[in-house]
Amino acid sequence: MSNAKQIQEANADFVSSRTTGQLPLPPARKLAIVTCMDARIVPYQALGIKEGDSHVIRNAGGRAPEALRSLIISQQLLATTEIVLIQHTDCGMLTFTTEQARGLVSKNLNLEPSSQAHKYIQSLDFLDFPDLEKNVKEDVEFLRSNELIANKTISGFVYDVGLGKLKKVA
Amino acid sequence: MSNAKQIQEANADFVSSRTTGQLPLPPARKLAIVTCMDARIVPYQALGIKEGDSHVIRNAGGRAPEALRSLIISQQLLATTEIVLIQHTDCGMLTFTTEQARGLVSKNLNLEPSSQAHKYIQSLDFLDFPDLEKNVKEDVEFLRSNELIANKTISGFVYDVGLGKLKKVA
Repeated sequence: MSNAKQIQEANADFVSSRTTGQLPLPPARKLAIVTCMDARIVPYQALGIKEGDSHVIRNAGGRAPEALRSLIISQQLLATTEIVLIQHTDCGMLTFTTEQARGLVSKNLNLEPSSQAHKYIQSLDFLDFPDLEKNVKEDVEFLRSNELIANKTISGFVYDVGLGKLKKVA
Repeated sequence: MSNAKQIQEANADFVSSRTTGQLPLPPARKLAIVTCMDARIVPYQALGIKEGDSHVIRNAGGRAPEALRSLIISQQLLATTEIVLIQHTDCGMLTFTTEQARGLVSKNLNLEPSSQAHKYIQSLDFLDFPDLEKNVKEDVEFLRSNELIANKTISGFVYDVGLGKLKKVA
């Protein structure tokens, strides 16, 4: 059975036991969380947030520059005032460089050197990083120094995917 | 108390009751979910996925074009083979146009017309959309037709934030 099918079945159970109703669009806790897409990060349980509380923005690495559009919308159109950025141990982004990823992806996908797809990959910044704590600090600094982020209550954490534990680093 | 502080306290409880240990880096269900940052979407409960199962990529709108880097990494470096894209009713991205957002943000932030920040906003595509189902179909088609997405098991859903219910539209 495909994941899509399994998800539909799990959702039917969720709907039948649901009592919440429609919550307001702006996050109740005026919070935006930025974190990695990693399968081992479960923001609701691990961070104690619940439906309606917080925007959750996730991408490979939990990188702030790629989250900028979403954060501007979160603060300027949906009234959030605080950002919590969380990256994590054993992150895939620590295991390769952009140069290596470009080579690997072009080879795997058998891209024609003259194709648009090949050009795209060769100019893509994979947003990898070699040092986790340093990268959290730099991503927080990117937001703190950015004129487009008006609300500057911003903190940065490392999440240990083994222990499930947060450590504040910025 | 700041959200960051509350999150740290909630996390201490999570850590003390945790028994999972460190799960493998590649998602167990070989799945990547793309959805909106909206506070009312709780993928774990609503979709029946658990820690370690699936990449979860989230941005304002749940837009596929902005998720492309993460999806390439997910498929090519972390071996996922299926994508489930979920956008939702009452989405903020249905309530404004890029043109309106550019004006509003520039005014709110009092940006100097000659500044870099002003130029950035004036050229930023906010990735808004006027028709929800049509947009899910277009984002799924964007992925299906994209040479950089090798694994084409892709489905598209609308999530009703009132009922908590998924509807398959692509």
